Amino acid sequence: MIYLDNAATTKPRKEAVDAAIIAAEEFGNPSSLHGLGLRAEKLINEAKDSIAKELNVEKKHIYFTSGGTEANNLAIFGAAEAMQRAGKRVITSRIEHPSVLEAFGRLSELGYDVVFADAERDGRISVDSVKSAITPDTILVSVMHVNNETGVIQPVKEIADAVKAVAPKCIIHSDCVQSFCKIPVVPSRMGADMVTISAHKIHGYKGCGALYTGGKRLKPQIYGGEQQDELRPGTENTAGILAFGAACRAAARDTDGMRKKRELMRSELLRLVPDIIINGSDEYNSGTVLNVSFLGIKAEILLHSLERHEIYVSTGSACSSHKPQPSHVLTAMGADAKAVAGAVRISFAETTTEDEIMEAAGKIAAEVKTIRRYMR
Amino acid sequence: MIYLDNAATTKPRKEAVDAAIIAAEEFGNPSSLHGLGLRAEKLINEAKDSIAKELNVEKKHIYFTSGGTEANNLAIFGAAEAMQRAGKRVITSRIEHPSVLEAFGRLSELGYDVVFADAERDGRISVDSVKSAITPDTILVSVMHVNNETGVIQPVKEIADAVKAVAPKCIIHSDCVQSFCKIPVVPSRMGADMVTISAHKIHGYKGCGALYTGGKRLKPQIYGGEQQDELRPGTENTAGILAFGAACRAAARDTDGMRKKRELMRSELLRLVPDIIINGSDEYNSGTVLNVSFLGIKAEILLHSLERHEIYVSTGSACSSHKPQPSHVLTAMGADAKAVAGAVRISFAETTTEDEIMEAAGKIAAEVKTIRRYMR
Repeated sequence: MIYLDNAATTKPRKEAVDAAIIAAEEFGNPSSLHGLGLRAEKLINEAKDSIAKELNVEKKHIYFTSGGTEANNLAIFGAAEAMQRAGKRVITSRIEHPSVLEAFGRLSELGYDVVFADAERDGRISVDSVKSAITPDTILVSVMHVNNETGVIQPVKEIADAVKAVAPKCIIHSDCVQSFCKIPVVPSRMGADMVTISAHKIHGYKGCGALYTGGKRLKPQIYGGEQQDELRPGTENTAGILAFGAACRAAARDTDGMRKKRELMRSELLRLVPDIIINGSDEYNSGTVLNVSFLGIKAEILLHSLERHEIYVSTGSACSSHKPQPSHVLTAMGADAKAVAGAVRISFAETTTEDEIMEAAGKIAAEVKTIRRYMR
Repeated sequence: MIYLDNAATTKPRKEAVDAAIIAAEEFGNPSSLHGLGLRAEKLINEAKDSIAKELNVEKKHIYFTSGGTEANNLAIFGAAEAMQRAGKRVITSRIEHPSVLEAFGRLSELGYDVVFADAERDGRISVDSVKSAITPDTILVSVMHVNNETGVIQPVKEIADAVKAVAPKCIIHSDCVQSFCKIPVVPSRMGADMVTISAHKIHGYKGCGALYTGGKRLKPQIYGGEQQDELRPGTENTAGILAFGAACRAAARDTDGMRKKRELMRSELLRLVPDIIINGSDEYNSGTVLNVSFLGIKAEILLHSLERHEIYVSTGSACSSHKPQPSHVLTAMGADAKAVAGAVRISFAETTTEDEIMEAAGKIAAEVKTIRRYMR
């Protein structure tokens, strides 16, 4: 099997699996007053330490959630509700993950003044588009760090600086699900007040993520017990959290290596396959994703033909894969319908080898040739 | 170790741990179009089948959440928002879990007309108190099935019938976190439209629960991708869900056995320890919890002294254990301050043995005697 769909999800690594097994033994409720509870609480704190260290932040501002989607929702609704007296303008971009886009769509229904900033042809959010939307009463701006369909690194710092110049109290949130442990994610350097991360993108388990709140006062989105300062109540997902901490500690953080993998796949495909387009900047790329349009074919057909060789890639994002809609990211980048229809996302893990890339590139070239012949 | 805090959380059973390990191998994103994704989706469906079978419901109406707290919130806010044009009256009881009480508190802030029904001295919700609150425009009633502090089985069916007689379109929700797989939980027989359940109370993992919606149209509380009919988006917690299904399939469902355990502990404590009060009905009891007030002592002191013998019990609910507040459940039942201060929750698992109960009862009696001597 050659798994090249790591932007959708990654295989839990041994360290994470072991940590989840420990959680089944250390099974006390972290809120219990007795020693079993305290031991579980201590392990959760150790996981939080590892994540806080990676982000270079105070651990008391990290709140665990059921994943990136919930963390993005908590950031967006939590900030918008807490800040609504200060203004109604909220800004995001057209290329965000559905959990950000749909949350902003809901804010619009609720009467907020929502602006979706444009993207440039290279897959970066247009800083000018954001700038022209900023008003002094802008309360929230959410822009992702690395795009999940293209791997393109976004100008978060430039946007944050432009926003703070006009609206100093505006909260800047960044969805860092695709960048955490892949390229450096340090909120203070990015100009981000709040950051979303997820375990299953870094070889942890699905069902666990976190929001770094930067100490911003947010309105809770779930009500209940006293857990997590009552900002996010509910018994903690101990196994998922311990695995998240272990995955974070064990991550390779080899950005140069990832970029080399992407470059190898890119150059091989350009060499072997005619009529292709690489979508998104090569310069501003995390190295984790290569998005390629194979002109004249439908990406889904290529996906399934590669599957017969146990090569796994994707069309756009898994979170909207069952919806037969053209990619909102590529569309926002100005790609034409033909390029969007033939776009495949190839995404790498630290375990992806050169041999796998060479073999996959060869198989992709052969399958594209076959499909194109049939489609004529 | 004698673990008697099973109402707070249970130890993941082998079947659940094995299922979570399988999930780390079958790691595809259930939303991915390729075979790895489909295999994960299939495993999730099998878990859903097991849960649907236990509830005797259609599996398409089961939605996985991050736990009981989120499921209760989704039920309450989801129904209240979807039904708000039909009325503003919503009813719950004073003895619910904080995730229900606090959600209703929030509904009150949002302008809903909230009534908290009283409890009887025996720990059952007063059906009369609910009846006197019902209006034709009542849109939501949420009453728990088994109380988490006393184990008392609640008159859900009687309440549901009374409600439907006056407000036929009112949604009845029941928090069944403490009853699922312990006593029969069949929504149609209970008169409940919606039911909340949780994995970590039945020897699954923390961080996974579900809401059975009965097909009621609810307003989503999280926005994002297409997962779970867009009612509860976000990549599914595959490991937690597979473990939940496995735990459900493996559950002993030995209600008589549980009642015998409770009865043994109850009679032993009554025999060995003077000046104690058993809180809550023995007749209407799930058998999972024995709540005892040791008059003249502080429960927390007893908890910590038992801990030295590796016997684990609790004071009230784990979800509010760090808050030094008297139990809202016992207070609503009319227990006096002294009985509340000395109340300990002893909760059983299917694995709890007679020997453990006898040993724990003896140790409890000895510790109570010592503490009382010091406190004089």
